[in-house]
Amino acid sequence: MSTTKKVAIIMGSDSDLPVLKNAIKILKGFDIPVEVRIMSAHRTPAEACSFASSAKENGFGVIIAAAGKAAHLAGVLAAHTTLPVIGVPVKSSTLDGLDALLSTVQMPKGIPVATVAIDGADNAAYLAVQILGVYDDRLADALTKMKADMTNEVIRKDEALQSQIDNL
Amino acid sequence: MSTTKKVAIIMGSDSDLPVLKNAIKILKGFDIPVEVRIMSAHRTPAEACSFASSAKENGFGVIIAAAGKAAHLAGVLAAHTTLPVIGVPVKSSTLDGLDALLSTVQMPKGIPVATVAIDGADNAAYLAVQILGVYDDRLADALTKMKADMTNEVIRKDEALQSQIDNL
Amino acid sequence: MSTTKKVAIIMGSDSDLPVLKNAIKILKGFDIPVEVRIMSAHRTPAEACSFASSAKENGFGVIIAAAGKAAHLAGVLAAHTTLPVIGVPVKSSTLDGLDALLSTVQMPKGIPVATVAIDGADNAAYLAVQILGVYDDRLADALTKMKADMTNEVIRKDEALQSQIDNL
Amino acid sequence: MSTTKKVAIIMGSDSDLPVLKNAIKILKGFDIPVEVRIMSAHRTPAEACSFASSAKENGFGVIIAAAGKAAHLAGVLAAHTTLPVIGVPVKSSTLDGLDALLSTVQMPKGIPVATVAIDGADNAAYLAVQILGVYDDRLADALTKMKADMTNEVIRKDEALQSQIDNL
Amino acid sequence: MSTTKKVAIIMGSDSDLPVLKNAIKILKGFDIPVEVRIMSAHRTPAEACSFASSAKENGFGVIIAAAGKAAHLAGVLAAHTTLPVIGVPVKSSTLDGLDALLSTVQMPKGIPVATVAIDGADNAAYLAVQILGVYDDRLADALTKMKADMTNEVIRKDEALQSQIDNL
Amino acid sequence: MSTTKKVAIIMGSDSDLPVLKNAIKILKGFDIPVEVRIMSAHRTPAEACSFASSAKENGFGVIIAAAGKAAHLAGVLAAHTTLPVIGVPVKSSTLDGLDALLSTVQMPKGIPVATVAIDGADNAAYLAVQILGVYDDRLADALTKMKADMTNEVIRKDEALQSQIDNL
Amino acid sequence: MSTTKKVAIIMGSDSDLPVLKNAIKILKGFDIPVEVRIMSAHRTPAEACSFASSAKENGFGVIIAAAGKAAHLAGVLAAHTTLPVIGVPVKSSTLDGLDALLSTVQMPKGIPVATVAIDGADNAAYLAVQILGVYDDRLADALTKMKADMTNEVIRKDEALQSQIDNL
Amino acid sequence: MSTTKKVAIIMGSDSDLPVLKNAIKILKGFDIPVEVRIMSAHRTPAEACSFASSAKENGFGVIIAAAGKAAHLAGVLAAHTTLPVIGVPVKSSTLDGLDALLSTVQMPKGIPVATVAIDGADNAAYLAVQILGVYDDRLADALTKMKADMTNEVIRKDEALQSQIDNL
Repeated sequence: MSTTKKVAIIMGSDSDLPVLKNAIKILKGFDIPVEVRIMSAHRTPAEACSFASSAKENGFGVIIAAAGKAAHLAGVLAAHTTLPVIGVPVKSSTLDGLDALLSTVQMPKGIPVATVAIDGADNAAYLAVQILGVYDDRLADALTKMKADMTNEVIRKDEALQSQIDNL
Repeated sequence: MSTTKKVAIIMGSDSDLPVLKNAIKILKGFDIPVEVRIMSAHRTPAEACSFASSAKENGFGVIIAAAGKAAHLAGVLAAHTTLPVIGVPVKSSTLDGLDALLSTVQMPKGIPVATVAIDGADNAAYLAVQILGVYDDRLADALTKMKADMTNEVIRKDEALQSQIDNL
Repeated sequence: MSTTKKVAIIMGSDSDLPVLKNAIKILKGFDIPVEVRIMSAHRTPAEACSFASSAKENGFGVIIAAAGKAAHLAGVLAAHTTLPVIGVPVKSSTLDGLDALLSTVQMPKGIPVATVAIDGADNAAYLAVQILGVYDDRLADALTKMKADMTNEVIRKDEALQSQIDNL
Repeated sequence: MSTTKKVAIIMGSDSDLPVLKNAIKILKGFDIPVEVRIMSAHRTPAEACSFASSAKENGFGVIIAAAGKAAHLAGVLAAHTTLPVIGVPVKSSTLDGLDALLSTVQMPKGIPVATVAIDGADNAAYLAVQILGVYDDRLADALTKMKADMTNEVIRKDEALQSQIDNL
Repeated sequence: MSTTKKVAIIMGSDSDLPVLKNAIKILKGFDIPVEVRIMSAHRTPAEACSFASSAKENGFGVIIAAAGKAAHLAGVLAAHTTLPVIGVPVKSSTLDGLDALLSTVQMPKGIPVATVAIDGADNAAYLAVQILGVYDDRLADALTKMKADMTNEVIRKDEALQSQIDNL
Repeated sequence: MSTTKKVAIIMGSDSDLPVLKNAIKILKGFDIPVEVRIMSAHRTPAEACSFASSAKENGFGVIIAAAGKAAHLAGVLAAHTTLPVIGVPVKSSTLDGLDALLSTVQMPKGIPVATVAIDGADNAAYLAVQILGVYDDRLADALTKMKADMTNEVIRKDEALQSQIDNL
Repeated sequence: MSTTKKVAIIMGSDSDLPVLKNAIKILKGFDIPVEVRIMSAHRTPAEACSFASSAKENGFGVIIAAAGKAAHLAGVLAAHTTLPVIGVPVKSSTLDGLDALLSTVQMPKGIPVATVAIDGADNAAYLAVQILGVYDDRLADALTKMKADMTNEVIRKDEALQSQIDNL
Repeated sequence: MSTTKKVAIIMGSDSDLPVLKNAIKILKGFDIPVEVRIMSAHRTPAEACSFASSAKENGFGVIIAAAGKAAHLAGVLAAHTTLPVIGVPVKSSTLDGLDALLSTVQMPKGIPVATVAIDGADNAAYLAVQILGVYDDRLADALTKMKADMTNEVIRKDEALQSQIDNL
């Protein structure tokens, strides 16, 4: 669907890619055009600011930013755009992602970052679809179907459990 | 603009109202129709589920949910809609809002909640405007102006500071 | 004993089953009828609400609910029943279960969840037996015997330790 | 109703009384006989152990224990009874009650404590009623009415909010 | 030295033994008589209380207590003796020992527990020697020698490092 | 009793005095000679090291050290003596004393600090008496009496509570 | 001394000024030229980047940056300069400054921020003097004198305490 | 360059060496003379104090101190020098480095420690270069080049990612 806005997935480091791979698949599964970039708030700030500043005119509708530790990436991108920015705090080798969560979610007034769970890149993708789906019935319908599938999968697992329960 | 989607602000308890008052003003300032409701995931679950289930067909584009402690409200609403749900963790008398933050942001796969800072209702409002602004140029333009105003206010404060700096 | 109430063990995801397996055995060891289900506060909310709403009339006496991350399951079930609901916070890949603990225990006034330790499903089972044992002498007596066995096991281990202490 | 079991409310220190006062009222409101005691796991351990050991034969059905800091009271009582013990972690001058929460909830296998929220004594009372209500229809019915009242109160507050919303 | 008081090492569970093995060796290295016991505040409370109550008359000078999770053992022992009780918080499968640390150290007024680091059983042993050494010059002298050895070991490692530094 | 060892109370800053005042009284109440000093691990390190190094020969039996924030005082004193050092973590304007607790208790192998609760100076005093009482029957007997008084006070408060319970 | 580099003090919001006032005085007391600015990583990112990029050529030697919540300011400035950047985490209305501390200190490889204590602006000033003093003997000598004064003040307070100790 | 000040890297234990190895390489890469030492605030306090006291006259410009748990090393060194001291909190077996972070960063007024991320020794090295570079153009230029290399590496990785993105 040609009028669908694109979604940008920005990671602060290529080490964040494993956390993001499935999110890319999810967005592609909704036929949403995705651009995946490595940009750092601290190592390539000019690239990051430039990308965010022109994202809207370049056809993006949502920016997903994933970073660990003192995760400034989502906030710095949000400072340069009026598009919604979704932040994915990435767990690193210490503090179990709490540092990234607080660095991402505790934004000051005027510059929100829509934060999802630690390592919750899949939900960042679903949230991006929800945002684009506000004015796009094709996506809203696809989300409704996805939720029904998800419900059915739990019901199937619940039924499968019943058949093995006597052996537990 | 008559085609603008409405924003719902749901609070889990009337004690959350002080945190939300300015958010209501912010949305009204963007000429976005707002509906403000008290609904509890635990005390009025039927009302909350029903509201969320029909929110899209009732003309809402975004739902903002604010709750404290074991803050289930945003997640429960998100379970019943494909609309983006913004969660505002509210600080209560213990744990400084950390309980509400984790209860709101750490959502399982498939049911994202777009979480903002603890007591960050103002940013929930701005995020709602950003979401509606993805396909609404009037709102996007108003956000651009808001950000410019915000920038200018900091610059003015910085200039004012210079004149008093010798007296510090 | 035919008049004993049933205990329901509800897990938010089939990935929680390993944490719960021994709890099922414990309840069966007390000859308490157990029903084990997968139901999610977010993926199958209708099933969860329906189950909780009719649990009492369906012969259940206690509901055990286990979930990780933003663990809303126990709270959502508790919203739909007057039966005691025991919450088991499950440790997931980040934050060591603190998110699930706070999401489970910090319930608002009027909707308690009887929370046990992180991954403490065994104690959820024992607590269920204690609750049913308030008015059921067979269970109370069995608990007394279980506690005596537990005491004796520690005493035996203590004695065994004495014989090897010189080799430590 | 003469056959109703009694509920014991034990506090570790008289400084915990303000947290517990409303819980006493709640239990009395359900016509449940209540005994309120000050007993300390550390200062009067003999009294605490003796009370717990004979609580069942003395007609108690549930024990509520409230303590702050290294809150051992609920666990120590639970070690001496097969009755369900509800733990109320009390916030003290440092650490916002996190110390009491972890000391209460993280019990080892075999000795559960049904833990409620920090300073959540009201919910301890409601949980006690739920437990006694498993085999007592009068209490179960009263809880159903209480939940309906609670629902109606939220609905009334929601309606009242609508009338003042234009002035916010 | 026949008049040296004994040190008791009490563990809440035999799973704590690996944490304590070296502490036993340290105490034996100072020729201090050691008794090692498994006693639980919750599973064998009578044995624990009895042991602590008679520890002083039985020739003990210090009690070391190690436990994990809601670690009540040290506090419960301290409630029954005037001897100094040293608490070793043991790390378990969740929360990295923070639960045991707070449960051990945050004791109420009148019942101190001398708390050492999480899994810090070696230091519990050294602290016991220091306590016995207050009035026992043999032990004080041995401690002085131990500290000198420790200093020399660091100095030797520092010197060894210098010879390999060019290859780092 | 002229042979009783002295207790030193060292505070890192005069702002810690309010936390320590009652501890001084407690020690004096046991007729233990007390020396109270302000010495800082960072501002007067030479004085602190010198004091600790000669404390034993100067007749001290125990050193109590109270400090806030990055509380190094107890550890630095412990590095220079074989006497037991009791650490009192002091709550300061941020982090509720958690910084001082961890800085005090998490000591490396060989240099224990006997840590008490945050702001728990009273227990530091009682612990000092316990330590001196290991080989001093006068103090041990006084502690036994103190514990009995403490028990009786709780029992009196419990009795007083019964008379007002109907008015609660 | 005309060749002394300037120190910049940047605050993210004018609400941070009270935390910084004394730091300005400290730097002036060392005759170090100070420039105080309000610049925000999120509201005036262009100004902040521009300032940092040209700070070295404009005669600055050190940049002090103070911000609260998701404190990105120090990191963003550090991304644009090779000068040392000192970060002051500022406590805000929730989480006691832990969010600002982690957002400031947990910087990724290559972009260090020299972090001081929460609300520790005074130490940021002293650290700036230390940095400038590495190659500036006037400042190093002044620091030596400052430390001696600090030592003497503690000694004086310790002496004053001795005279009132009998009245404590 | 013969006039360049030396950098000292002090570790509290040889177990900290793996964390520091790359930092040594980084400093050598800038042609900065490095001295690497094992010194402990608690086991070799005399050596540590002596080293710090004479570091400036011995030609050092910056001291890097790495330690875990109750990490007092950086603070104790800072107490004895006017040189800037950089603290590296080292993660140990419990608490994920939070103890070392708070023990290092929360220094009292007058004795700053320039704290970097947990296990962030590389950044300690870069920060040392920045500090020496304030008055040393060779180092400042080398830092500028390092930052450009770092930027280019991210850009190269971003470009490489684009070529594989269709296969993700």
